[in-house]
Amino acid sequence: MRREGCMLAAVYRKEARGLRLEDLPEPLPGPGQMKISVRYASICGSDLFLVRSGQLADGTVLGHEMSGVVDTLGDGVRGFLPGQPVIVRPVGCGSCAACASAQENLCPQRLAIGLGALKGAFAEYLVVPQEMAIPVPEGLDLKLACLAEPLATALHAIRLAGIGSNDRVVVLGAGGIGLCSVALLKALGVRWILVSEPQEGRRNRAMALGAQRGVDPMAEDLGKAVEEWKGKEGVTAVMECAGNSETTKLALQMVAPGGKVALVGLVKGTVDWAPALTMLKQIRIQGSFANTQAECRECLGMMARGELNVEPMLEGVIPFQELPACMDRLLHAPGEGKLIVEVSFG
Amino acid sequence: MRREGCMLAAVYRKEARGLRLEDLPEPLPGPGQMKISVRYASICGSDLFLVRSGQLADGTVLGHEMSGVVDTLGDGVRGFLPGQPVIVRPVGCGSCAACASAQENLCPQRLAIGLGALKGAFAEYLVVPQEMAIPVPEGLDLKLACLAEPLATALHAIRLAGIGSNDRVVVLGAGGIGLCSVALLKALGVRWILVSEPQEGRRNRAMALGAQRGVDPMAEDLGKAVEEWKGKEGVTAVMECAGNSETTKLALQMVAPGGKVALVGLVKGTVDWAPALTMLKQIRIQGSFANTQAECRECLGMMARGELNVEPMLEGVIPFQELPACMDRLLHAPGEGKLIVEVSFG
Repeated sequence: MRREGCMLAAVYRKEARGLRLEDLPEPLPGPGQMKISVRYASICGSDLFLVRSGQLADGTVLGHEMSGVVDTLGDGVRGFLPGQPVIVRPVGCGSCAACASAQENLCPQRLAIGLGALKGAFAEYLVVPQEMAIPVPEGLDLKLACLAEPLATALHAIRLAGIGSNDRVVVLGAGGIGLCSVALLKALGVRWILVSEPQEGRRNRAMALGAQRGVDPMAEDLGKAVEEWKGKEGVTAVMECAGNSETTKLALQMVAPGGKVALVGLVKGTVDWAPALTMLKQIRIQGSFANTQAECRECLGMMARGELNVEPMLEGVIPFQELPACMDRLLHAPGEGKLIVEVSFG
Repeated sequence: MRREGCMLAAVYRKEARGLRLEDLPEPLPGPGQMKISVRYASICGSDLFLVRSGQLADGTVLGHEMSGVVDTLGDGVRGFLPGQPVIVRPVGCGSCAACASAQENLCPQRLAIGLGALKGAFAEYLVVPQEMAIPVPEGLDLKLACLAEPLATALHAIRLAGIGSNDRVVVLGAGGIGLCSVALLKALGVRWILVSEPQEGRRNRAMALGAQRGVDPMAEDLGKAVEEWKGKEGVTAVMECAGNSETTKLALQMVAPGGKVALVGLVKGTVDWAPALTMLKQIRIQGSFANTQAECRECLGMMARGELNVEPMLEGVIPFQELPACMDRLLHAPGEGKLIVEVSFG
């Protein structure tokens, strides 16, 4: 039985070290905010990172990769209508200098839905400031639309690092962002993509998304594989999506002079780094954090126009009730693709 | 008395651990080469670095920042005339893929005049492949023209890192490339330039070139000075021109989120680097090596049109005979600006 004024949410509970489905009060949109009925929310590596960290506050509602439909508009909200399909870009206050200059990802407040501070999309309803909402183009399946946010994170890194269609690219790690990177590189016309990933299922998905070569770094010598693959022409760009200090070191070694290394994964630990080699090889090391509004719109557009092949990255769609058990499982055995939670009961 | 067929050159002698003026055979241009009568050659920090290293081969002729006039053209050279003023861009074979795509600085051969492999400009005559020669625009003093090469190295770093007129820039180190960087930043319209440099004379020259604030990092807390200077807006770009692992670390600390760090100096040693901070702060670390033909032409053009103020970086012009003693002195007490050697006796 549903309780009046309540909604179901997957709530992080410290004593359970995981999520539990609970009834929470249904949120109400304040001025400039909107209430969204969540349809789909995908699980991000950072959700697992946050749960694993032990630092997450009791009662947190995670979920920042989502799609849904507008339920209710708060006072003063213009440009949206109830029933309209939207996604949410999770970071950005909408009013600081960074947000005003289309660099919402650098918003110093870093108030983000679903990452701790504000309640996220692993719930039936979500309230967000209107600046965070982005309309979904007509005809785009909401199940795919929730992937626009992680795709935009990959696009952001590719753009910032200056990776283009003539680059020969190595993607280190084929987790969520690694797979999104391969899909985007392919869509942007990159013809040479090598993926290094120990897990076979992920490697296969990367190949299906457009990588030309998959390497299991536990079974093959990665450096040798890269050299055999592109010979003396070398690798002109590396995307570090594994979040690992060893692969970061490898990236700096394997990239050709004049090349780019995009840091997309969250690396634990430090690297003994020789700036002189970065200088003499003229490497660009580009740190990349999250994404912008414009990049989310662009990814939605590419998907709506069929320019971005994302299906192979989908491991499956699970019902909301299974989210807590699924998170427990992922904490011990990482998945091989994107898992999407169907939140709606409608 | 001049000996027939000979020229005076400053030759590195291992037993003297420095330069000695000697008679060398006057070089002859082969096919596709030209012989240049050297007028001016400035002393670069890497000349001192090479002498200090103890790795320089006995008999080396240094000097890669130069200007002169065409003396004789080898077979097949087109587009130049004897008597024409030129400078030389020291790296690049002219025929590899890097050279063909205007990235001469990444030429894998790295055959360079005046840096060991090919004889340099600390001599009355120099023979270079025609691809290395660049005409000097009319009306530009040859004494200043020899500075186009180090200026282009600073321009290259600024361009690669994506530093623009709205950036608030800290230049770490006001040696030759630091001073060139300040001059270029000023010419490109950057209004906020802070220079950190322990030597007072260099600091004063940096201020005269266009820096707004000079900090002596031995006497002042640099981090505090930077913060007081730009407050919460922060520093959006740092040019590491000191070639020091401590200042490289500082650069990563002081740059604001979304900022750029250009590595221009040759850093000895390693840095304990946390890639996660570079990623979360979204920093671009841009290694920059040397410069391109196009950038040298651009700097010559800016100087010829009076857009680039370089006079304050000139510490003095010394006669060729004084070069060996001057190098000895610089090895023990670094200079405070660019020293230009007047090579011609004409």
